[in-house]
Amino acid sequence: GPAADGKLTGLVAATFTPLTQHDEINLSVIGPYVDYLAEKQGIKNIFVNGTTGESMSLTLSERKDLAEEWCKRAKGKMDQVIVHVGCLSLKDSQELARHAARVGAHAVAVIAPSFFKPKTADALRAFLTQVASAAPALPFYYYHIPAITGVNVSARDVIEGIESLIPSFRGVKFSGSDLVDFGQCVSHRPQWSFLYGLDEQFLGALAMGAHGAVGSTYNYLGCDVQQLMSAFEKGDIVQARKIQFKIQELVTYAIKLGFDVGVNKQLMIEI
Amino acid sequence: GPAADGKLTGLVAATFTPLTQHDEINLSVIGPYVDYLAEKQGIKNIFVNGTTGESMSLTLSERKDLAEEWCKRAKGKMDQVIVHVGCLSLKDSQELARHAARVGAHAVAVIAPSFFKPKTADALRAFLTQVASAAPALPFYYYHIPAITGVNVSARDVIEGIESLIPSFRGVKFSGSDLVDFGQCVSHRPQWSFLYGLDEQFLGALAMGAHGAVGSTYNYLGCDVQQLMSAFEKGDIVQARKIQFKIQELVTYAIKLGFDVGVNKQLMIEI
Amino acid sequence: GPAADGKLTGLVAATFTPLTQHDEINLSVIGPYVDYLAEKQGIKNIFVNGTTGESMSLTLSERKDLAEEWCKRAKGKMDQVIVHVGCLSLKDSQELARHAARVGAHAVAVIAPSFFKPKTADALRAFLTQVASAAPALPFYYYHIPAITGVNVSARDVIEGIESLIPSFRGVKFSGSDLVDFGQCVSHRPQWSFLYGLDEQFLGALAMGAHGAVGSTYNYLGCDVQQLMSAFEKGDIVQARKIQFKIQELVTYAIKLGFDVGVNKQLMIEI
Amino acid sequence: GPAADGKLTGLVAATFTPLTQHDEINLSVIGPYVDYLAEKQGIKNIFVNGTTGESMSLTLSERKDLAEEWCKRAKGKMDQVIVHVGCLSLKDSQELARHAARVGAHAVAVIAPSFFKPKTADALRAFLTQVASAAPALPFYYYHIPAITGVNVSARDVIEGIESLIPSFRGVKFSGSDLVDFGQCVSHRPQWSFLYGLDEQFLGALAMGAHGAVGSTYNYLGCDVQQLMSAFEKGDIVQARKIQFKIQELVTYAIKLGFDVGVNKQLMIEI
Repeated sequence: GPAADGKLTGLVAATFTPLTQHDEINLSVIGPYVDYLAEKQGIKNIFVNGTTGESMSLTLSERKDLAEEWCKRAKGKMDQVIVHVGCLSLKDSQELARHAARVGAHAVAVIAPSFFKPKTADALRAFLTQVASAAPALPFYYYHIPAITGVNVSARDVIEGIESLIPSFRGVKFSGSDLVDFGQCVSHRPQWSFLYGLDEQFLGALAMGAHGAVGSTYNYLGCDVQQLMSAFEKGDIVQARKIQFKIQELVTYAIKLGFDVGVNKQLMIEI
Repeated sequence: GPAADGKLTGLVAATFTPLTQHDEINLSVIGPYVDYLAEKQGIKNIFVNGTTGESMSLTLSERKDLAEEWCKRAKGKMDQVIVHVGCLSLKDSQELARHAARVGAHAVAVIAPSFFKPKTADALRAFLTQVASAAPALPFYYYHIPAITGVNVSARDVIEGIESLIPSFRGVKFSGSDLVDFGQCVSHRPQWSFLYGLDEQFLGALAMGAHGAVGSTYNYLGCDVQQLMSAFEKGDIVQARKIQFKIQELVTYAIKLGFDVGVNKQLMIEI
Repeated sequence: GPAADGKLTGLVAATFTPLTQHDEINLSVIGPYVDYLAEKQGIKNIFVNGTTGESMSLTLSERKDLAEEWCKRAKGKMDQVIVHVGCLSLKDSQELARHAARVGAHAVAVIAPSFFKPKTADALRAFLTQVASAAPALPFYYYHIPAITGVNVSARDVIEGIESLIPSFRGVKFSGSDLVDFGQCVSHRPQWSFLYGLDEQFLGALAMGAHGAVGSTYNYLGCDVQQLMSAFEKGDIVQARKIQFKIQELVTYAIKLGFDVGVNKQLMIEI
Repeated sequence: GPAADGKLTGLVAATFTPLTQHDEINLSVIGPYVDYLAEKQGIKNIFVNGTTGESMSLTLSERKDLAEEWCKRAKGKMDQVIVHVGCLSLKDSQELARHAARVGAHAVAVIAPSFFKPKTADALRAFLTQVASAAPALPFYYYHIPAITGVNVSARDVIEGIESLIPSFRGVKFSGSDLVDFGQCVSHRPQWSFLYGLDEQFLGALAMGAHGAVGSTYNYLGCDVQQLMSAFEKGDIVQARKIQFKIQELVTYAIKLGFDVGVNKQLMIEI
């Protein structure tokens, strides 16, 4: 089960969105997908409709159908389902947040809007606050991924004083390579969850105090990374490093193939 | 009236979206707005729901309501209403394209998807082609604005062979500073419309053969830029330059204030 | 001959540095090179030891030998020889400036230091001022090429008030694509020389008021660009554009080959 | 003493260059500086004339005088003096490499040329190889610092097969945030030394297998980082992290002040 205080820790799989050949969402696969993650990969938490889930190119109603199905199928099998509800439009994000609460999500997460980019932490916090207010009872996570959004505000600045604006704030999915920013988040608010999002350098973030990880490779490398984490916790850095290097090799190979969602899904099938 | 062959030339105002204090769209302002552009700024063409119109942060239904109102109010007063229908989601873009055709738009335009960024001209053309297929009877424009989308494919590469994929293809709204790319578009397909989108360096693009311009400052500097264009056409480069420098000074001043949509709208009121 | 007031206008060829197969400088080629430029390309001004001249990878003594030879061979054949003396080291730059004065250069030019990058206009002006003070009698030009130096200070900001620090200041070799910055330089200090450095979009800068151009392609396209300039001056924009497009095609082709100094030198031989 | 096989491990202080008020090098400070590092900071290895040493803005003769003095004063007090000999000019770099060998350096290091940037690993290896050939008896290190040089070739690619070109190759000073590239270097050639250069996230690199660190803060935080390393080696990650966070706070504070060499030198005096 989850930590007594509900703090989100450990591995979180960022799920793919099953699509048909004609790019229609395929809800029928989600039930077996949950079973596979729980049984074969030892995964207890999922992050749905994120970048891995291609949510930003789905319609609102597709995202709702997916969120609902994931929540329904994960019941009793996963500890937590975090639904990503960020959109370019604030109103759309709020609608998805309300919907996530309704269908039983355990938490919501929101990415920075990437078209009209907020230039300051204040502007970004204002956006997050307005989304959070649509689902005030749900734990709220900020999804930090500057290389894709182009929003260059440090996560440390974003979380400054955010608890007074968003009482439900619980942490950050941190998908960036800046371990100084990451370290300062962890040391500033150790009670929150800081989950690292670059699978291929997770070990560095663990050393900096990461409480867990959210990533796409955990769909098929979940067991390996569980081993990496437990080696690290036991102080067996040599073994942890060995697993990390193996993952780096795989990811580097995948990047040479493009490492888009298609390649990633293919890897899941092959491995 | 428009050119006999319907080729889009001259000035196109990129319209703002009227919003209330509570960020609701305010359709009642659109009628007077059209009159103002036609009567006070000498504008004959408008580009609605673009970047200036903040479309990327509006909901689908807001965009539809706006498109419909602009088309209705512009009837008989504007030569052409180009409706921008680009979204991160292909299906949403297609839905807006169909809707634009239904409400009487004269043309549609589409921006590159900026979250999952197409890496090649082929990938981007495929996206544009699928949107265009939803409104095959409407002239189609590609909206090139790499500094915002982060899609670094040259416009010249995008338009290569595009007529065989999109028979309704008619040109590019080119909002980039690369005048080599722009010049090569113009020289490659002189029959299409290449409209320049950086108001503050329009004169450079005119020299390279721009057929017109699409921009936000034409909401309040329309007359000045008409004069710039006619000075340029008469070979009075000194006068054209004088007007361009005046615009540069204004825009540089506005950039120091942030030059976001709020500042821009304020300038429109003041000038 | 030159303008009565000595104002530098028209075409300036940025010369290549003749090297042997073993990367030794080959001074014997410089005499014939000057003759070729004067007689075959109609060039009256040269910019030596710049980027085209690979000066930043030459030793101090190589740069001195080259400067001396160019000045000696150009005497009576060129109106002006501008020697670029910028280095990463201030002391080296000052030494080269003193040397340029000694060997009869007509002017010096200085690039921004690109390793420890000045972050403000003040810091950059301070560097330029100290170099200029080593050759106070020579006209001084700032060489603006942000894409290579990584120094992102606008030229307009750099020249603000520079005449009180550098009384010999005379203008800018502007090798950037920002025509707003360029336009504001020209309108701010029309008495100085603003020479454009991106050959492939020179026509845009001419429209903005460029007083001339400095570039590497003028080594072999000098006559074409003279024609472009005179067409532009006569108001024949169609002809000017035609020549510009031809140059764009050539440069685009060269860029596909790498467009490094080797390719460029090869083009000079072939064309 | 050093490892029996001479492998460079542990902390290496990147030394500042003592300058007078008039920007003349001040050799007289170097003797006491060495004593301070050895006695107060527990430093056994120094990296001289690097970025911290402002070498790229010094003249060749200043760099020689400094290299000589550091080698002389460090004799018997430091295990290794690594002299950085990289310049924009290959010939200058070779001259400095020969000089370093002559004055008793234990090793040389070379940065990628940052003005004419090598675009491929092959081109960069060729440059490094030619410098190394001027001091073939000295251990050779590649200095990787892409954020400053703008040379975006991964270190992993640079070291591929480099031992056949540079038999004296011994490792990399890796000053970049990409821990995947770093991890792949370490796993690919564990026998070489991979020393990490971003002091504020050293712990992440240690987890990835860093053999040591080269940095400017070790001039004044040497003892703290020794403690960090020994805590890490003993498996006391909590203590290691605590020290790392303290350093992050200091560096973040320094960055707000500019964190240029001036600020850094001031910190050394104050702490």
